[in-house]
Amino acid sequence: MQFLSDNAAAVHPTVWEALKAADSPDSPYDGDALSAALDERFAQVFDKPCTVLWTATGTAANCLALATMVQPHGAVVCHEDAHIEVDEGGAPGFFLHGAKLMLCEGAGAKLSPRAIRDMIDPIRNDVHQVQPHAISITQASEYGCSYRPAEVEAIAALASERGLGLHMDGARFANAVAFLDCAPAAAAGPVDALSFGFIKNGGLGAEAIVFFDQNLADVARYRRKRAGHLQSKGRFLAAQLHALLEGDVWLHNARHANAAAQEIAQACDGRLLYPVEANELFMRCTLAERETLRERGFGFYDWGEDAARFVTAWNTREEDALSLAKAIASL
Amino acid sequence: MQFLSDNAAAVHPTVWEALKAADSPDSPYDGDALSAALDERFAQVFDKPCTVLWTATGTAANCLALATMVQPHGAVVCHEDAHIEVDEGGAPGFFLHGAKLMLCEGAGAKLSPRAIRDMIDPIRNDVHQVQPHAISITQASEYGCSYRPAEVEAIAALASERGLGLHMDGARFANAVAFLDCAPAAAAGPVDALSFGFIKNGGLGAEAIVFFDQNLADVARYRRKRAGHLQSKGRFLAAQLHALLEGDVWLHNARHANAAAQEIAQACDGRLLYPVEANELFMRCTLAERETLRERGFGFYDWGEDAARFVTAWNTREEDALSLAKAIASL
Amino acid sequence: MQFLSDNAAAVHPTVWEALKAADSPDSPYDGDALSAALDERFAQVFDKPCTVLWTATGTAANCLALATMVQPHGAVVCHEDAHIEVDEGGAPGFFLHGAKLMLCEGAGAKLSPRAIRDMIDPIRNDVHQVQPHAISITQASEYGCSYRPAEVEAIAALASERGLGLHMDGARFANAVAFLDCAPAAAAGPVDALSFGFIKNGGLGAEAIVFFDQNLADVARYRRKRAGHLQSKGRFLAAQLHALLEGDVWLHNARHANAAAQEIAQACDGRLLYPVEANELFMRCTLAERETLRERGFGFYDWGEDAARFVTAWNTREEDALSLAKAIASL
Amino acid sequence: MQFLSDNAAAVHPTVWEALKAADSPDSPYDGDALSAALDERFAQVFDKPCTVLWTATGTAANCLALATMVQPHGAVVCHEDAHIEVDEGGAPGFFLHGAKLMLCEGAGAKLSPRAIRDMIDPIRNDVHQVQPHAISITQASEYGCSYRPAEVEAIAALASERGLGLHMDGARFANAVAFLDCAPAAAAGPVDALSFGFIKNGGLGAEAIVFFDQNLADVARYRRKRAGHLQSKGRFLAAQLHALLEGDVWLHNARHANAAAQEIAQACDGRLLYPVEANELFMRCTLAERETLRERGFGFYDWGEDAARFVTAWNTREEDALSLAKAIASL
Repeated sequence: MQFLSDNAAAVHPTVWEALKAADSPDSPYDGDALSAALDERFAQVFDKPCTVLWTATGTAANCLALATMVQPHGAVVCHEDAHIEVDEGGAPGFFLHGAKLMLCEGAGAKLSPRAIRDMIDPIRNDVHQVQPHAISITQASEYGCSYRPAEVEAIAALASERGLGLHMDGARFANAVAFLDCAPAAAAGPVDALSFGFIKNGGLGAEAIVFFDQNLADVARYRRKRAGHLQSKGRFLAAQLHALLEGDVWLHNARHANAAAQEIAQACDGRLLYPVEANELFMRCTLAERETLRERGFGFYDWGEDAARFVTAWNTREEDALSLAKAIASL
Repeated sequence: MQFLSDNAAAVHPTVWEALKAADSPDSPYDGDALSAALDERFAQVFDKPCTVLWTATGTAANCLALATMVQPHGAVVCHEDAHIEVDEGGAPGFFLHGAKLMLCEGAGAKLSPRAIRDMIDPIRNDVHQVQPHAISITQASEYGCSYRPAEVEAIAALASERGLGLHMDGARFANAVAFLDCAPAAAAGPVDALSFGFIKNGGLGAEAIVFFDQNLADVARYRRKRAGHLQSKGRFLAAQLHALLEGDVWLHNARHANAAAQEIAQACDGRLLYPVEANELFMRCTLAERETLRERGFGFYDWGEDAARFVTAWNTREEDALSLAKAIASL
Repeated sequence: MQFLSDNAAAVHPTVWEALKAADSPDSPYDGDALSAALDERFAQVFDKPCTVLWTATGTAANCLALATMVQPHGAVVCHEDAHIEVDEGGAPGFFLHGAKLMLCEGAGAKLSPRAIRDMIDPIRNDVHQVQPHAISITQASEYGCSYRPAEVEAIAALASERGLGLHMDGARFANAVAFLDCAPAAAAGPVDALSFGFIKNGGLGAEAIVFFDQNLADVARYRRKRAGHLQSKGRFLAAQLHALLEGDVWLHNARHANAAAQEIAQACDGRLLYPVEANELFMRCTLAERETLRERGFGFYDWGEDAARFVTAWNTREEDALSLAKAIASL
Repeated sequence: MQFLSDNAAAVHPTVWEALKAADSPDSPYDGDALSAALDERFAQVFDKPCTVLWTATGTAANCLALATMVQPHGAVVCHEDAHIEVDEGGAPGFFLHGAKLMLCEGAGAKLSPRAIRDMIDPIRNDVHQVQPHAISITQASEYGCSYRPAEVEAIAALASERGLGLHMDGARFANAVAFLDCAPAAAAGPVDALSFGFIKNGGLGAEAIVFFDQNLADVARYRRKRAGHLQSKGRFLAAQLHALLEGDVWLHNARHANAAAQEIAQACDGRLLYPVEANELFMRCTLAERETLRERGFGFYDWGEDAARFVTAWNTREEDALSLAKAIASL
């Protein structure tokens, strides 16, 4: 019973079907019909025009999006525990040609206008100090917390006021939308670009960068090729995105994962480090308790010395979630 | 009847089977069993130790390999028509942090020791001129010509003498091996790293960088992650490579494509721009002739103003190749 | 009697005076009064508003200017013998984060609209091919040829039509202006930025980047600091520029150097590779003839196997130029 | 009476003399006799072989040194208040092609082996996390504190144990040596490269990168040219270094500045934020007190809301230091 991560979970059946269906000749790269239909498909999801580029990884999606907003001499304001800072092997430094990440604190790995202002207001407007060019927030956050629409709006207002780009790392955007139970456009707010994750949610190897600013997308197209991310059989990436959007499979999958997380959360009374607002749980438990859980067959990561992280996925079995909940309750 | 390119061809059935078979839980990134087994699998192919990293594109494979050999202040010696110069959207400049490409001439898009020396010997050994750090050759070349083992050896000897790294772009390495009818190790020669292509030869989205120098591979691992090319469900890339190597499917596929190319070549008497030594044909033909062929249902690219390029693939139907041959013969 | 280069020539007395005069306390970096007065000073020279940044080298001036016009995924169109391609140790690749140089041919190392169009027109407007973002021309050229105002205008018109930035490497701009005997603004034409050289013309270590577009200058300011080119005692660089502009010392110096070059040129009848339109001469002469000249005490560089390069400077003595002319005449 | 900074102080008379003396023809770039003599000259200072490159700024010196030790995918461990992090406009990101800075805490802006270990020990040795490649320490520190030789040794031992390069930012190295009253080699310890500052200590525009590893210097030579930092009249930079080393002017200057700082420090009883171990003082004082001091004619920077920074220089007049000391004492 694995709760290690959703990042290596199985591929959803509808994705397999779509992949096989895409195995007929079409133009290479993103010249195929499926890739061409993405803009329209996502415009329906967000109820506004957008330009969509597929990539094979969330790291590439994040960094290609940011590279359109941040000059090499600028910086991205993000949370100190953001994926782009902690887990991407320095990819932002590569894609942004040496631009900096400016690290803010914030409960639940979420940024706030106040935290951002505390970071950027003291920066002198001179050439000796690196200037912020964009803000990146994560929906849901690294700690499984979801920004409320008003929270995103407030950050966007600050970004707009200061002339900063706004990017959303949505590796688990689906889980946030499911949790917030709102329109995708409300969960995304007025960001300039969204890395919309599908791989953790039933995909094989396709994410979407959703640009709400056509000019940024035009730049990103060149950068994607330049980064070796323009696959020649791109139709197979587009197919995955269509498959998961069709019939709202992405939302069903996310709701399923979230429900499993809530099931487990109810057993964690008083132990949770953060509210469970997506498909991740961070729970205080001793080494002995973790050993007990592992003996009972549960897989998960230690989180520092006295906590554990559990991640549910689109294919987490209800009985497994229940078993884990019971096991935790009985600790 | 498409002869546009092999780069968007269908996926081989054995690859589909392997992909589905890989859809069971395993560790993310390259921590899975399939990825772990690649070194051994390719060591059998090359009959010597090697370290193998999968990537999703040939561009990434080429540039990640070169980045381990070339400092940002150095240069890569390559043919002026090499893919890294002409078709990769400036990716080498990105992955190599501004290193230059030094462009040599050579018949059939092949380099020779003489052409390389003519390029690098006049370079003063001072800081005002960029110094070469590596040589990159393409097997088979952009024009479908294959280096004979002795030719690779001669270039490798020069590289070694001058302290230069040696990289082989093997986007169509399989076709070269099939044409040369020699051991893969002989077709690769003593290169430091080989971009071994599978996508044009039946794969979906996986290439292999084969490092014959462990130290280079150690660097490339970090660079791959940093470039956003470490997919979380990496087992699906490894699975493709295993599937095509198993039972020498890769060679069968290449032989099939090459045979189709030879079939067509026989009809091109006197028209060929280059010898057909892989699965590409470059044929002189007038605009009117090209229109005639297109009217008969053949798809292909113009090659300048008075030539056409035909590419066969692992799944080119024999009857289509025959039809094309006949159509050409009757021009 | 040295005719090797003007790049290591002595420092003009007025520069020394200005340096000493600047040795009183003022604000660091470019916050001093002398630096602040540069925009106005150069605006007088060019009879239009401009923003001026000093740098210590022509390489930095060229690359900082270009970095404001060229995205990392773009390219600079320049002559194949341009200094940025041949002599700057790959600096454009560094400052432009991997952007390419697209190399054109052209007599006398000068570009023409036709040569530029021949280079860029065949570039497909797709992501596989690097797109041009700017043009860089050299006034006077690497071979001592000066663009006529109409020639610069024609290139600028093309740049404007194609949405390309236009940069002028003016390491020997003074010599071009002196030769053309026109207003500096006419010699520069409607370029976006000019690297205006002073070091070869009597300066110690200061060049000017003259931006005719304020937005570019704003970016360059950050890039200059980021490149370690913002000297803390910047007043000493500004002082050099003021000293050479004051009383048109720069023009007098250039006229002197040009006159010396013309003196020598008259002796080179039939031997000159390029018209002498600044302070450089490229003259056919055999190895034996070069030996003869060297025995008579003349220092100069070989230019390939059967030519020599002579460069005059602001401090070339008339008698030395005459001696050289006589020596050449008597060959 | 200025105590703002030493970075824009006057130029020492011996430097002016040396500059004028260097104004005779010699080879360009670093081919002149003065540049060639630097290795030997600094070898005498450090009593061991070294290779020395001049640069025009400390930023360039620091970043060129680090670029020889840190791959683009690696990181530099430094203090969170280090100049390379806070004041260089993102230059390390540029010169190191996107490598990160890992920020440690430490009293007086000094690192310790413990602080470094606390930073790097938790880093998993995998590709998802950026790995440290070098350590950079500042002697004297940003807060005017000097590492004792044993402290440098301890950090060097850790660097060696972990296979990390070790760089010392010695913008005020002279002041540290003067304070420690030890051999320069002891103050530098076994670092791989030292940015030895001269500009704050009487120079005009020349710093030295002292490499104790020839291989690093060989790389730095190319990088210096590529960064536009190889001045054509380099003899004038070399001349400055020789002038300040000759007769230990650099040490006399530093001792003078340090003595002035000590004079002032004695008046700061109980107010000092850090021990005064070079030529900088950080002193608690209220806004009202700062206004009082400014009314009496003293120039200095605020340091946050309730402190001030005073910097003495080689040319601080004794009476000015005394005046300031008295003024502070009477607050």
